[in-house]
Amino acid sequence: MHQPHFGSDNASGIAPEVIDALARSSAGGVDSYGGDELTLALEEKFGEIFETDVSVLPVGTGTIANALSLAFLTPPWGAIFCYEEAHIVVDEANAPEFFTGGAKLIGLEGDHGRLHPDVLRRAAASMDANDVHHPRPSTLSITQASECGTLYSPDNIRALGDTARDLGLAVHMDGARFANAVVALQCRPADMTWRAGVDVLSFGATKNGCMAAEAIVVFGDRRKDVPVLRRHHKRAGQLFSKMRFLSAQLDAYLDSGNWLKWARNANTQATRLADGLNNIEGVRLLHPVDVNEIFLEMPLTIYERIKRTGFGFYPIQFTGKDIGTLRLVTSFNTSPDDIDYLLVAATTA
Amino acid sequence: MHQPHFGSDNASGIAPEVIDALARSSAGGVDSYGGDELTLALEEKFGEIFETDVSVLPVGTGTIANALSLAFLTPPWGAIFCYEEAHIVVDEANAPEFFTGGAKLIGLEGDHGRLHPDVLRRAAASMDANDVHHPRPSTLSITQASECGTLYSPDNIRALGDTARDLGLAVHMDGARFANAVVALQCRPADMTWRAGVDVLSFGATKNGCMAAEAIVVFGDRRKDVPVLRRHHKRAGQLFSKMRFLSAQLDAYLDSGNWLKWARNANTQATRLADGLNNIEGVRLLHPVDVNEIFLEMPLTIYERIKRTGFGFYPIQFTGKDIGTLRLVTSFNTSPDDIDYLLVAATTA
Amino acid sequence: MHQPHFGSDNASGIAPEVIDALARSSAGGVDSYGGDELTLALEEKFGEIFETDVSVLPVGTGTIANALSLAFLTPPWGAIFCYEEAHIVVDEANAPEFFTGGAKLIGLEGDHGRLHPDVLRRAAASMDANDVHHPRPSTLSITQASECGTLYSPDNIRALGDTARDLGLAVHMDGARFANAVVALQCRPADMTWRAGVDVLSFGATKNGCMAAEAIVVFGDRRKDVPVLRRHHKRAGQLFSKMRFLSAQLDAYLDSGNWLKWARNANTQATRLADGLNNIEGVRLLHPVDVNEIFLEMPLTIYERIKRTGFGFYPIQFTGKDIGTLRLVTSFNTSPDDIDYLLVAATTA
Amino acid sequence: MHQPHFGSDNASGIAPEVIDALARSSAGGVDSYGGDELTLALEEKFGEIFETDVSVLPVGTGTIANALSLAFLTPPWGAIFCYEEAHIVVDEANAPEFFTGGAKLIGLEGDHGRLHPDVLRRAAASMDANDVHHPRPSTLSITQASECGTLYSPDNIRALGDTARDLGLAVHMDGARFANAVVALQCRPADMTWRAGVDVLSFGATKNGCMAAEAIVVFGDRRKDVPVLRRHHKRAGQLFSKMRFLSAQLDAYLDSGNWLKWARNANTQATRLADGLNNIEGVRLLHPVDVNEIFLEMPLTIYERIKRTGFGFYPIQFTGKDIGTLRLVTSFNTSPDDIDYLLVAATTA
Repeated sequence: MHQPHFGSDNASGIAPEVIDALARSSAGGVDSYGGDELTLALEEKFGEIFETDVSVLPVGTGTIANALSLAFLTPPWGAIFCYEEAHIVVDEANAPEFFTGGAKLIGLEGDHGRLHPDVLRRAAASMDANDVHHPRPSTLSITQASECGTLYSPDNIRALGDTARDLGLAVHMDGARFANAVVALQCRPADMTWRAGVDVLSFGATKNGCMAAEAIVVFGDRRKDVPVLRRHHKRAGQLFSKMRFLSAQLDAYLDSGNWLKWARNANTQATRLADGLNNIEGVRLLHPVDVNEIFLEMPLTIYERIKRTGFGFYPIQFTGKDIGTLRLVTSFNTSPDDIDYLLVAATTA
Repeated sequence: MHQPHFGSDNASGIAPEVIDALARSSAGGVDSYGGDELTLALEEKFGEIFETDVSVLPVGTGTIANALSLAFLTPPWGAIFCYEEAHIVVDEANAPEFFTGGAKLIGLEGDHGRLHPDVLRRAAASMDANDVHHPRPSTLSITQASECGTLYSPDNIRALGDTARDLGLAVHMDGARFANAVVALQCRPADMTWRAGVDVLSFGATKNGCMAAEAIVVFGDRRKDVPVLRRHHKRAGQLFSKMRFLSAQLDAYLDSGNWLKWARNANTQATRLADGLNNIEGVRLLHPVDVNEIFLEMPLTIYERIKRTGFGFYPIQFTGKDIGTLRLVTSFNTSPDDIDYLLVAATTA
Repeated sequence: MHQPHFGSDNASGIAPEVIDALARSSAGGVDSYGGDELTLALEEKFGEIFETDVSVLPVGTGTIANALSLAFLTPPWGAIFCYEEAHIVVDEANAPEFFTGGAKLIGLEGDHGRLHPDVLRRAAASMDANDVHHPRPSTLSITQASECGTLYSPDNIRALGDTARDLGLAVHMDGARFANAVVALQCRPADMTWRAGVDVLSFGATKNGCMAAEAIVVFGDRRKDVPVLRRHHKRAGQLFSKMRFLSAQLDAYLDSGNWLKWARNANTQATRLADGLNNIEGVRLLHPVDVNEIFLEMPLTIYERIKRTGFGFYPIQFTGKDIGTLRLVTSFNTSPDDIDYLLVAATTA
Repeated sequence: MHQPHFGSDNASGIAPEVIDALARSSAGGVDSYGGDELTLALEEKFGEIFETDVSVLPVGTGTIANALSLAFLTPPWGAIFCYEEAHIVVDEANAPEFFTGGAKLIGLEGDHGRLHPDVLRRAAASMDANDVHHPRPSTLSITQASECGTLYSPDNIRALGDTARDLGLAVHMDGARFANAVVALQCRPADMTWRAGVDVLSFGATKNGCMAAEAIVVFGDRRKDVPVLRRHHKRAGQLFSKMRFLSAQLDAYLDSGNWLKWARNANTQATRLADGLNNIEGVRLLHPVDVNEIFLEMPLTIYERIKRTGFGFYPIQFTGKDIGTLRLVTSFNTSPDDIDYLLVAATTA
């Protein structure tokens, strides 16, 4: 049954190419715990995408990708600077604090979810890195695309990266929607990561067509410490015994530009949907729609109309008696027809 | 290409029924993070298997199933009693210590991997549960089938369970090869778990035909504390966004008795293989072969012969110049032909 | 040599009455680890002060008093609400995060260091206590006297306590300067603690005449869980072998109203000092002086003058070329002559 | 009132020289948190004792000295090898596991509490240091004097130290009764520590005349990582605000050879006591008496006789109906008259 769900890109299924890859890679016995050929080839594959040598550790969820990345970069007495509504702050049940052994997340004000170097600089300046009483400024974590569905340009990231290096901070990027950012910016993956100062990337794939596969990607000098990250990874229960099947997902994802093609569709449908809704009386966009997330204020009447499609939505967050806010997210397999059907419903009393 | 691997049942692929289930459940959008119908139906499905109400949390690996189960049952100042070579002691990179917040694992002597109530009683007696200086005796963890490939009978487990209750200990079972145990003992799952005093079970499925799916199963009174376990689970990065695909695996696994059928094959082929090898001059079984694991001492010459099959093996552990020990494991999809081919090779100079 | 230090009340020595108590209690052998009579009598002594049954655990420092109190009240996935510049946020090197196993501190805006119930309510409302993704609102921590040297009235605390109970939060009070608050408010200790909704108090004594002794005081229903707190306490290395000497300090501190007498002196001298400085051209009080802490803006010239006294000060924090901010703190043994000498210096070119 | 307590050297009071030091150092205001002169001079003082440059961090208890030392030397996925009945295993409520973030303690068989290099070598060999599944062999912890009251010779320690270095292990010494060991062996402190391969020492002082003062002493190359240890130390609540009073204790302890004089008395009285008891029918020494601890088997009748002295004892541990084991410990201030009085009682029906 076809039933799109606009509550999240997590609500979508698995791309057929990925299921095929699972079936194909299932033949025969292979060394477990990552000793298989697909896993061993991952770093080269990612290296081509990022135009540099990288270390890659597949994991099962975005929460653990973030938590292990932060634990790798941050001592227990460290401070992690991030947007005040970052996923790592509000949606991961203190996993970052747990895996770091107690680091402190410092939420900063953002511009539609994006941090500014000056805000970072001021926050870090309030702590003395050499004073054992204070949390030690250790890590900057940014989200690309951001939690508000907006984008940092490569120049924005480089400015943050330079500031971070200046302040002695490592840089983590939560790339849950990394592919959506790449296609929207039409930039090279390298330009918005290591060339801009990013040390470790949570590379998301699940939301964009995989089943359960993300990758921690480590760049540059930090690679020499990857043996420590491998211990974190195993101890977190992330060294899957049949690791080949996480690798098969990632392999199919990167193959033939699938990841970019799927993200491009999600972004395109989001624009189509945002444009359509934005023309409706009473509907207001809360943030620019840079990728595949749309944050809206809408009258309850409109919400009730779109619910009648039978499509999936999460509950509206009431901000008044007859009005509320809603997030809509498109996916790798959202079709233009779905959008048009939704838009017709929204405008039909 | 067909290439069986006898190093581990982890080396095997995914059962076709499971791949089909992944493909089938991929259609349409569903609520993420476990709000889907497959996940919501899991507890009823497991409840039928176990003939009682249970709580079920799917997770990605056996290590995390064990670590979260132990963290659920054990305070940070607690002691966990287990076999001295238990997987949780030697093969999980201190994950149990990490997730419990610092509990202490107390390794006990076993009889081919199985603990005896007297040994448990003596160990617990050495600590005063009311003395804040001491680790507090908190949890018994047993493995069924054991790390030596042997089995506890339901009576054995009940004797341990009674002793544990007497000592104020919770009981965890690491059931990485639970299906293999059920078919070998021809017993009801309930009889070797909650009816015998088990509070929490790490229910393994990955080794026996799934891709990456285990379940933490909670019985009886402990169920009232499951909200706490759900926090552990989320914080560990185990609340998969596309949870339906873990549930789909477990659903297909339990469907139509697949899990038992697959385990029965693995056990049968192990017996066939063990019997064959045991007749070879110089080969010696180190433990009884109760399920699908065979621990052997063998001359190097035999090892080199079986390697010539091209099948997968892990390295022999030398115990002398020309002799060593080896573990062979059969899988849900090991064929009698594979076994025969291997046995012929082993006896052909 | 007499040399007062206005940098902190921590810079002061030990009250002679406390040294006498150490010497007196040193005679003879007693059971270690708190089995001695002084320790066993502590709860009754504190019970009289607080007009109710209490549980009391002596500890060595304020940081550990706070960290263990918070670990007692807050699950690892919990959120702790506090003033954004609270000692537990900025000056304890992430000890609260460590001892809680990863709880998140949420810093809130305050009025000269004091929280308002509405701010608390809004912050808690942003998290769904039943959503495993979110940190769970768990604990309110307030500081009395506050980090700005101001006071909550008993009514203020009760309002916060009522709000906290409403929100399902436990209430912790950091009472590093509890005695100074009691004498300034002329209230009963009970009225600003358990009668106002406080569950656990970090009762400070070190700053006000002891050597190294604080107490965790547990009130009301939380007392039934104190056995768990005792495990935290031991595991943190806070069960001193010669515990009688922490208890002797606390006993002498509470004896004959010493604690109030000493705090009264500190407060009186702070008022005298604040009044004198406030009359000097260019000097400005940053916060009301409710107890023994004075936060000032002052010209560099004045700072250099007071430094010439030879008294102790911490460095001025420059806010401009010739101006900066400074904290001055008076102690149990600060004399009026010290104050007058300082004030003369401050006004003498 | 004079009432010796033979249950533990922890049952003793404070040496008058230490009380005098507390009183003397209390005059005037000084920088808090270790900025005072006594603390700043500690490293030079310890450096003279150990004939090399050392880093010194005062702490309040032996448990925390051990836990922080181990956390400094051991990663969370590490294994710590120690005697199976070591204090860190059985008497510290899992503090080492907690502060290390989950390291595993591996208890080894000993000869009257002392480890042998071969046992260490075998235990380490069972783990592959490069296999992320296994705990990583990281640290050796030995106790001098041992938990059985026996001593390693400097040569014994060097042999263990050499083995540890060979295996890539750091070496920690729990020196709760370090002074007793030094005087009994008549050796230089350097010879049984850094010259023999010890990296970090828990230097005990509390049991031997101080009130609450131990020191973590770091030797050699490990000193370059001491900034990390200082973070652990602060975060554990061990950076006392009035640190001068811990330093004053340690200063007085080391002054004029007090520490050795006091330990010598304890050892002498232990020998006197052990010799006297050993001549009594039915009494049997369980371990050699190398320092100030005596482990005995004795008939209940004898135990009841010595109890009649009114001196302090801990309960006898029954091993039969009329017989049990008992630990007796002498202290810095045990007098020969106390011993003689006890011995007369023991032999008087």
